[in-house]
Amino acid sequence: MRVAIVGIGLIGGSMALALKEQGFADTVIGVDENPVHQAQALTLKLVDQVLPLDQAIAASDLVILAIPVNAAEKILPHVLDLTDKQVIMDVGSTKEGLINCIANHPKRARFVATHPMWGTEYSGPQAAVTGAFRNKATVICNKEENDADALATVEAAYQAMGMHRVYMNAKDHDVHVAYVSHISHITSFALANTVLEKEKGEDAIFELASGGFESTVRLAKSNPDMWVPIFMQNKENVLDVLNEHIAQLRKFKSCLEKENYDYLKELIEQANGIRRILK
Amino acid sequence: MRVAIVGIGLIGGSMALALKEQGFADTVIGVDENPVHQAQALTLKLVDQVLPLDQAIAASDLVILAIPVNAAEKILPHVLDLTDKQVIMDVGSTKEGLINCIANHPKRARFVATHPMWGTEYSGPQAAVTGAFRNKATVICNKEENDADALATVEAAYQAMGMHRVYMNAKDHDVHVAYVSHISHITSFALANTVLEKEKGEDAIFELASGGFESTVRLAKSNPDMWVPIFMQNKENVLDVLNEHIAQLRKFKSCLEKENYDYLKELIEQANGIRRILK
Repeated sequence: MRVAIVGIGLIGGSMALALKEQGFADTVIGVDENPVHQAQALTLKLVDQVLPLDQAIAASDLVILAIPVNAAEKILPHVLDLTDKQVIMDVGSTKEGLINCIANHPKRARFVATHPMWGTEYSGPQAAVTGAFRNKATVICNKEENDADALATVEAAYQAMGMHRVYMNAKDHDVHVAYVSHISHITSFALANTVLEKEKGEDAIFELASGGFESTVRLAKSNPDMWVPIFMQNKENVLDVLNEHIAQLRKFKSCLEKENYDYLKELIEQANGIRRILK
Repeated sequence: MRVAIVGIGLIGGSMALALKEQGFADTVIGVDENPVHQAQALTLKLVDQVLPLDQAIAASDLVILAIPVNAAEKILPHVLDLTDKQVIMDVGSTKEGLINCIANHPKRARFVATHPMWGTEYSGPQAAVTGAFRNKATVICNKEENDADALATVEAAYQAMGMHRVYMNAKDHDVHVAYVSHISHITSFALANTVLEKEKGEDAIFELASGGFESTVRLAKSNPDMWVPIFMQNKENVLDVLNEHIAQLRKFKSCLEKENYDYLKELIEQANGIRRILK
């Protein structure tokens, strides 16, 4: 199968590696606006060739959009205009907006909306790694709106990557990811800013930062070009969760201010309930 | 050297393993109020024998207090009452309170206040691991108040564990750890409660939670018996950082509410500055 990957960064590049390695893709065609990324993708052998978007679509069986969610919204209608029998999929972190913007497109059924639940705080072709998606979940949204063959192709691609599939409607997806991904990023960005703002002695942070600090703050290295559009598109859900998170933090603050340590203990015991979910 | 470890949990047990493995300790004597922990420590070969506190002190050259910070404050004066030539050290996450409570004790100079910057979200003897402290930093506070031989013994113990030493006064220590450790725990507890509160579909969290969620929330599994006393003792510093953290989160909230995405991007770029500190 000939696969075009639009956006050869962390996700697109890692998919290129996985699909080639598993024999799902015979040829991987890269599409990227950034000439540096084009060159890196070729040098790192993430892709076999680089083509302009329209030629890549014409030359492919499967087109994967692995670009920020705002960029995907911009080009998806155009990609579908050029689609004949190709299958188009995206990998973005928000789904409802993208699906709405092509809801009435005559080729709607060729587009499969997906979100593989894997990522790191790094970006660009050099961040791509082998074995990235294995044993993780991928979400496929609104599958009933797809042609059977388009859905089957995308399912087979994820199968090749070693991912298990979760089906969900786009609206529910966007609510859930606000909880399990987007709020983690906001809290990590805010935590980094808290420390950078107040702790002017950066040497002290560097010396003292232990594993706990590193794990809560590492997402703060994430790329704004990817995350601002996600927060824009999932604004209502993210605000809802963010308000709740601030309310929860205020409970801790109030316990400390009032020296109500029994309630503080209760709050921590309640938080320990996350053990039910994370092993 | 004969080493007594009071509290054979995650930290005490891991220190027992390291000091024995490196040949620093010939004999490790365990002290623990919990009979289950006593039995586990013997079965897991963390300690050679278990003794009551007073006998353990009499039989040791070095006594390590590896118990919650409130428990350490309670027993340290008593431990020093029984101290002759022994060296006493603690490993707690707050330092000023503990040092103040024995400031005028005639044996003050035998007590070395330390804080090794390593831990996990697990607790108890079964959480102890080998190689725990290697290549991490340990803080030694107010060393000028120590007898030279007591300080040298503690430095040698940390050398054996493979830790590098940072010297600091207790007041500065408590401010810095509020930033690089305590706030991470509060934000992680609050994040867990946010998700558990609002996201009733636990199956969805389980399916969708990716590495990013896991890393920001894992500290929420931490033991309240350890953390409530830390927050009590470092209340003022923790409140100061927590207020700043809530203020930083409100900036993100305001950006979303006002759709001020340029400022949102600036906030994220500012947070990316953490790359200077965490590689």
